[in-house]
Amino acid sequence: MEDLKALINEIKNYQANIFGKDFLLTWEKSADELKQILAVADALKMMRSKNISTRVYDSGIAVSLFRDNSTRTRFSFSSACNLLGLAVQDLDEGKSQIAHGETVRETANMISFLSEVIGIRDDMYLGAGNAYMREVGEALEDGYKQNVLPQRPAVVNLQCDIDHPTQSMADLAWLKEHFGGLENLKGKKIAMTWAYSPSYGKPLSVPQGIIGLMTRFGMDVRLAHPEGYNLIPDVIDVAKKNAAESGGKFTMSNSMDEAFKDADIVYPKSWAPYAVMGRRTDLLRAKDHDGLKALEKECLANNAKFKDWECTEEKMKLTRDGKALYMHCLPADITGVSCEAGEVAASVFDRYRIETYKEAGYKPYIIAAMILTSKFADPAATLSKLMQQNTERVK
Amino acid sequence: MEDLKALINEIKNYQANIFGKDFLLTWEKSADELKQILAVADALKMMRSKNISTRVYDSGIAVSLFRDNSTRTRFSFSSACNLLGLAVQDLDEGKSQIAHGETVRETANMISFLSEVIGIRDDMYLGAGNAYMREVGEALEDGYKQNVLPQRPAVVNLQCDIDHPTQSMADLAWLKEHFGGLENLKGKKIAMTWAYSPSYGKPLSVPQGIIGLMTRFGMDVRLAHPEGYNLIPDVIDVAKKNAAESGGKFTMSNSMDEAFKDADIVYPKSWAPYAVMGRRTDLLRAKDHDGLKALEKECLANNAKFKDWECTEEKMKLTRDGKALYMHCLPADITGVSCEAGEVAASVFDRYRIETYKEAGYKPYIIAAMILTSKFADPAATLSKLMQQNTERVK
Amino acid sequence: MEDLKALINEIKNYQANIFGKDFLLTWEKSADELKQILAVADALKMMRSKNISTRVYDSGIAVSLFRDNSTRTRFSFSSACNLLGLAVQDLDEGKSQIAHGETVRETANMISFLSEVIGIRDDMYLGAGNAYMREVGEALEDGYKQNVLPQRPAVVNLQCDIDHPTQSMADLAWLKEHFGGLENLKGKKIAMTWAYSPSYGKPLSVPQGIIGLMTRFGMDVRLAHPEGYNLIPDVIDVAKKNAAESGGKFTMSNSMDEAFKDADIVYPKSWAPYAVMGRRTDLLRAKDHDGLKALEKECLANNAKFKDWECTEEKMKLTRDGKALYMHCLPADITGVSCEAGEVAASVFDRYRIETYKEAGYKPYIIAAMILTSKFADPAATLSKLMQQNTERVK
Repeated sequence: MEDLKALINEIKNYQANIFGKDFLLTWEKSADELKQILAVADALKMMRSKNISTRVYDSGIAVSLFRDNSTRTRFSFSSACNLLGLAVQDLDEGKSQIAHGETVRETANMISFLSEVIGIRDDMYLGAGNAYMREVGEALEDGYKQNVLPQRPAVVNLQCDIDHPTQSMADLAWLKEHFGGLENLKGKKIAMTWAYSPSYGKPLSVPQGIIGLMTRFGMDVRLAHPEGYNLIPDVIDVAKKNAAESGGKFTMSNSMDEAFKDADIVYPKSWAPYAVMGRRTDLLRAKDHDGLKALEKECLANNAKFKDWECTEEKMKLTRDGKALYMHCLPADITGVSCEAGEVAASVFDRYRIETYKEAGYKPYIIAAMILTSKFADPAATLSKLMQQNTERVK
Repeated sequence: MEDLKALINEIKNYQANIFGKDFLLTWEKSADELKQILAVADALKMMRSKNISTRVYDSGIAVSLFRDNSTRTRFSFSSACNLLGLAVQDLDEGKSQIAHGETVRETANMISFLSEVIGIRDDMYLGAGNAYMREVGEALEDGYKQNVLPQRPAVVNLQCDIDHPTQSMADLAWLKEHFGGLENLKGKKIAMTWAYSPSYGKPLSVPQGIIGLMTRFGMDVRLAHPEGYNLIPDVIDVAKKNAAESGGKFTMSNSMDEAFKDADIVYPKSWAPYAVMGRRTDLLRAKDHDGLKALEKECLANNAKFKDWECTEEKMKLTRDGKALYMHCLPADITGVSCEAGEVAASVFDRYRIETYKEAGYKPYIIAAMILTSKFADPAATLSKLMQQNTERVK
Repeated sequence: MEDLKALINEIKNYQANIFGKDFLLTWEKSADELKQILAVADALKMMRSKNISTRVYDSGIAVSLFRDNSTRTRFSFSSACNLLGLAVQDLDEGKSQIAHGETVRETANMISFLSEVIGIRDDMYLGAGNAYMREVGEALEDGYKQNVLPQRPAVVNLQCDIDHPTQSMADLAWLKEHFGGLENLKGKKIAMTWAYSPSYGKPLSVPQGIIGLMTRFGMDVRLAHPEGYNLIPDVIDVAKKNAAESGGKFTMSNSMDEAFKDADIVYPKSWAPYAVMGRRTDLLRAKDHDGLKALEKECLANNAKFKDWECTEEKMKLTRDGKALYMHCLPADITGVSCEAGEVAASVFDRYRIETYKEAGYKPYIIAAMILTSKFADPAATLSKLMQQNTERVK
């Protein structure tokens, strides 16, 4: 138990002020707060491996609201909530009465009388997803203050138009493990690059999340994409500021090769240009199906000009000793496997397949840590209590 | 803990014979039984606020069957079941094999081998919803007696064609809190009135539930609606009989103003006329989409004649000191917010918004109390046991 | 508690090697292993009746994947998982990103980070369902070995193209109860016969499951169907081999009367011919809706030639003393109730209705026993521990 005690002690020593707060963007949290969440995730993972139950709730509801399809985040959220003792109730807007002009403020309160956490995926509309989460958070704050709600549920961003913090934090947890500690990430070169995909309209949240988070820990972050495939300008500014503050670097280019050169880590992934996402948002709102079809056609034609943005064996040779760590949020568009031509060559993906699975495997623990740190004023004390009670998770 | 002990003592002293019985209509329960349920709901709420776990089940299934859309009742039912330790399994008739001419008797048994409660919403077909619940209840009774089922699941009416008891009981719990006790409701004037809405086909269960319940406790209940917007005659008879027995009053009129005059409480809400619901039921059964469209058109045109049935600031001035308590089951059709012209003026709704949320907040506890009193022979003893064990709900 | 102790002792004495293994086909398990599962199911049922909690998991996820509609198996799986303390998370392929060419290997890992069991129904495509389950199992094995997964989830076959083991094992548990022990099944005549139904495309898994399992215990198993309504030849071979090994009998005929003659048990049920299921599989894969319609028409016309394959009172008179036990996996096509002409006469079905419900009632316990024996190395020790802890399931 010494390793667990040490970890709990580490958690105790971080300066964190995240109790009672939502997790919406990584750059709204201090470095210490992010480190605490990583450490809590590690502690929960360790406790589970030691068969120590981490049920901090004997009863309680967790609400999931997915406005876009999801497999791994849905299961990660369910698993995280279950690990803490919460039961998930899905808010299926199709089966609800929400369409009738009900306000967000009202819905947020109605689903929260006995709820401890609300996880939301809302990544379809540029300018809307994160704003919606904030609106929910404010409604909950108000409901709690007005004694409508006996507790203030925490909102967890399960992917929005701006950030995908449960993904980027899981990625960071994996890098921490892979490189043997956060301090070892200092100076490491990470290439966050666009990659070709035969589909279009992929959210910007992953690349934005990566450049917004990895610049916090002194890494050399390189963003590369074809001309026109820009991210949201505000997030670029965040990345620049972060890099300056953490002693890292943040550079941009239109060359995959340049980004891959001597990289320690590569993260090649497709996304739709910021401007396209804006047009798409307008068309979705207007329910202009013909417009959407036309936009898709135009974009796919444009994408097709950049089929060489593929993470091939040749490209991998450009990286440090030809052995950069390949990362992906999954599912990847794998050439010859899931599509004719895609983001990554099959041989490259296959070599790193198990690593990408391990990367994904951190997500349930990260989500559970986000919940625990938001809902418990002294997470170290809570974890200590669990350790001392030592209830078996499995008999 | 003295307040909790007093409450448990109160629960003990009620003469109740609801163990093993379904909750289908409030008027099938005695006043003492309803009071016991209110007190159990209060006790569960108090225990939760004191962080005492109310899990009476270490395992067990609760079945939800929603034949109509639902947000707040769905979440209330989930929350109630979770509070008692039950896991909800939804019976989605679209994903089941039920269409194949399977009998209600069979389905009821098949979903109940390890189930403790079945919550049903079935409010679309006049003459059918409550009857269906009874059919399920009889099938369960039979299955239990024949040793098919090791326990008899309780059926809870989550809204039918006749009553909406989880709503009306939550409303009553809220009135009990607001006015400082049930005895203070004696003589209070409550106006249950129709109100204009741009939609049609709203169930009759809420107004019927309100006049059927509030007449039990000596209130002066005034039902008002435009000519033709009648409720089910049998329920009117119930309300009359209740008022006579409880020393209250029950009057009907076609004037919103008359009903609002000096009212202590107003509950303005749209519904479809009884006769229309009957025609609608026939058309739904016949899957006559054109007929349904025509009926909708006719009804909306008729509704439009009564746009002045809106709970405006002027109307509110008619009430006692201009300050009657506004109630609604939510979501309300708010003029200028959720529709152009609706049931209530935005300024009125906004002034009472938090109150309507608190009203809604009782529903999970009411449902949990209905389950507990139906499944546990001595609810006071069960609650005492929970109090003594004093397991933390949240660590 | 003596009866429970005796049962646990029985469980201890079976030679079983099923720990860590999936349950995909009954004929992949030894007779002792099947007996152990039956005994564990009985023990779980007995413990529940004695109000002893059987939660072996304080937290943990169970995944359900239904590629075909299901009511009773869905509820049985949920109930079984809940009985052991697991929360069910449904994998709804329509709401996931699985369509994007993601590999089975990847999905299997992504949903399993904190999962203990995966229940799968996949019975639409001949040659595919069981193969899919194996692919999932291999992916999980690989993920576990490569440290992607902290535990190896057990796969439970909730019906495939070949077998329906949770059904046939529940049927066997029911026969064990009804005839007072497995040893009493020796020599008992069971008629597994085709029966007429106005629908088509019913899976082969039930008749195949029955002849594959009941031949294990010395029964005289008679398969009868109209010419052309063959089952998968491999399964016929399995049944022959089983009968030879167990000292039982396995015969085939094209006469319902012959099969019913002196039968102790009859199991009349419709299915589609093997060859038709093959053609149907091709058409489904090709999404050939016209082809499917044509095939349906052809098959229904063919079925109609065999309307006399109905379990009537006359047919029942052929059985031992006219009192064979009627069995069905439900829902049955009952003449005059769920269809004009079907598998069974209403009077016959009604006489055995309660028995068929009891038969179905074993399914949750059988599934729970399959999970427990796959996940716990020493199920007798685990059950002993539960018995000694004696936690109340219901307070």
